[in-house]
Amino acid sequence: MKNIENNSVGIVETKSFTLPDALTLENGETFGPITLAYETYGSLNTNKSNAILICHALSGDAHVAGYHIGSDKPGWWEIMVGPGKSLDTDKYFIICTNILGSCVGTTGPSSMDPASKTPYGLRFPVVTIGDMVKAQKVLVDSFEIKKLMTVIGGSIGGMQVLEWSIRYPEMVHSAIPLATAQRHSALAIAFNEVARQSIMADPNWSEGNYYSGNKPNLGLAVARMIGHITYLSDEGMRNKFGRRLQNKGDFSFNFEADFQVESYLRHQGTKFVERFDANSFLYITKAADYFDLTRLLNDGDAAFSKSKAKYLVVSFTSDWLYPTRKSRAMVKAMKKHNIDVSFCEIEAQWGHDAFLLPNQRLDELLGGFIERMAKEINF
Amino acid sequence: MKNIENNSVGIVETKSFTLPDALTLENGETFGPITLAYETYGSLNTNKSNAILICHALSGDAHVAGYHIGSDKPGWWEIMVGPGKSLDTDKYFIICTNILGSCVGTTGPSSMDPASKTPYGLRFPVVTIGDMVKAQKVLVDSFEIKKLMTVIGGSIGGMQVLEWSIRYPEMVHSAIPLATAQRHSALAIAFNEVARQSIMADPNWSEGNYYSGNKPNLGLAVARMIGHITYLSDEGMRNKFGRRLQNKGDFSFNFEADFQVESYLRHQGTKFVERFDANSFLYITKAADYFDLTRLLNDGDAAFSKSKAKYLVVSFTSDWLYPTRKSRAMVKAMKKHNIDVSFCEIEAQWGHDAFLLPNQRLDELLGGFIERMAKEINF
Repeated sequence: MKNIENNSVGIVETKSFTLPDALTLENGETFGPITLAYETYGSLNTNKSNAILICHALSGDAHVAGYHIGSDKPGWWEIMVGPGKSLDTDKYFIICTNILGSCVGTTGPSSMDPASKTPYGLRFPVVTIGDMVKAQKVLVDSFEIKKLMTVIGGSIGGMQVLEWSIRYPEMVHSAIPLATAQRHSALAIAFNEVARQSIMADPNWSEGNYYSGNKPNLGLAVARMIGHITYLSDEGMRNKFGRRLQNKGDFSFNFEADFQVESYLRHQGTKFVERFDANSFLYITKAADYFDLTRLLNDGDAAFSKSKAKYLVVSFTSDWLYPTRKSRAMVKAMKKHNIDVSFCEIEAQWGHDAFLLPNQRLDELLGGFIERMAKEINF
Repeated sequence: MKNIENNSVGIVETKSFTLPDALTLENGETFGPITLAYETYGSLNTNKSNAILICHALSGDAHVAGYHIGSDKPGWWEIMVGPGKSLDTDKYFIICTNILGSCVGTTGPSSMDPASKTPYGLRFPVVTIGDMVKAQKVLVDSFEIKKLMTVIGGSIGGMQVLEWSIRYPEMVHSAIPLATAQRHSALAIAFNEVARQSIMADPNWSEGNYYSGNKPNLGLAVARMIGHITYLSDEGMRNKFGRRLQNKGDFSFNFEADFQVESYLRHQGTKFVERFDANSFLYITKAADYFDLTRLLNDGDAAFSKSKAKYLVVSFTSDWLYPTRKSRAMVKAMKKHNIDVSFCEIEAQWGHDAFLLPNQRLDELLGGFIERMAKEINF
């Protein structure tokens, strides 16, 4: 076990919360039982006014910061969450839960269906971002938190942030959607669909019933590679890989990985299948494709008329999956409803993934905004 | 059979040409026999000075214009090639051959290996753009054409155009590379590699030995879908599909195609497997990834120092696979060697595919340039 840095929350563990009741989902079904895996860092103050909810992206989990016993791998946003960091665990009580439909402790398609005593597979309902948020709300309620100081997240996490601020306006003081959009473009849906097709084309997928046999690892690996390309940027890939060869000599003149970028993608695909469930990939990408803020009120940008949150919207220059114009459209819709919104486009070459990478500008922005919110709430 | 338009070359047929000798390939192998499928339109003049060679892209073939008996489907560049069109078959003798490694009449991995009397599969050598051009040159020689008035092509066809102009400078009076690049970026390689992985992940692929059994259709369909996304553009997809649903009502809440863009991609994938060989997809994308003009002389932009051609370079605003900056870099390298080059970036929303679609600006540009070349050659 490595020495843990002073500014880490240190050893943490994932806890479990089972919702007391079944949930009515957007597809009309009533579904339960639902268990959420979650982690918390820092302490909730007496007023219960210092809570920050972090919403994770597609392949994320509840483990945002610190280390699990026996593991050298920090949480996925260790750079952002810890004592003295932008999301300061000395000051704030931070919660993150694995989303509904995922596979890292929260109920999802790989969970045991108590009725049949077998994993749900495709019997698991097609959940939405709204359903994920609904489940998170029950957990937040269980802490008797009346209002979250901030809800923050990037990508699909940012969709949850937006959904929170409109579905539960009384519970959200401020909201920070990062690298996200009010709805997927045809291009984003197209990439997700091809990734799903890749999983479903793997004969091991077996209509989702693969839990007792071979898993659709090859299909899932290709799906991940497709996703991975969209998280990077042309510029970032050029700088990181260019046309550099894997072996210094000449081309192999066969179908091995000649270029470093090929080898990198293969590695990403292989690594991913060890930790992620193919059905969860299908469900979460579908939820992201379905997500459309305007559906909530069936009335275009009017969704934001319900919101009472202050927003900080952040985009990244090289993010072509959730490009800046998507964030600008969001900000415009907010402004139409006189919402207090700050917007920043951050110069970054790493594409969509930039929100997960060290970035001083992002640190400062988030730190400053959250401090301002803390002062307003005056806890 | 439909009525054929007056400005079509009408009924045509694909011919066959077998190279008299085996070819020494870039990988060092000597390979043969090689048969090329080709079509010609118009008549070669007495001077043999009015020949235009068209080079096709990844999934193209020799059938550029007109109709095959019994088919209503015109050649893939019917809009450009015919009497009175920009590539005017009343004036010019136009040749197109299916590229080496393909599957539409020319020798490729699905062809019979005379030694084993079984299809080559992966025993087929990994050919390069240079090898394809070398084979084309033997066909051009067979017409006793000393100099091609123009070599033209888009995408991987454009790579062949560039290769022609540098490999056989005495034989190329002018060259028109459209929507192409001197070499693939890491991003383009990444997309090709993921598409290849998708084919190779299909258990029916069987290391390329699938010709007597089930074909890797699912893997090839996903590969085509990946490719297809990169041929379109964010803007084009937004205009063509947006978030429009397949069935007017609500979401299906299952994994059927909800969005029109999903259904479109699935259709593209399914259609493609009926006409294209998965191994050919592997070989041609690999050739494109290997292509690097600078390799020819091992000396960066110096490749163009060998060229004697006049160039017309064309890019399209929304092409993100072969973006304008790639064409500009090419033009810059040409200018460094005092090459006569015209460059135009055409405003088009359809992404990389734009070069195949009706576009008045492109028509005029090509028509004008080719007319100028014809005057110069003075046939």
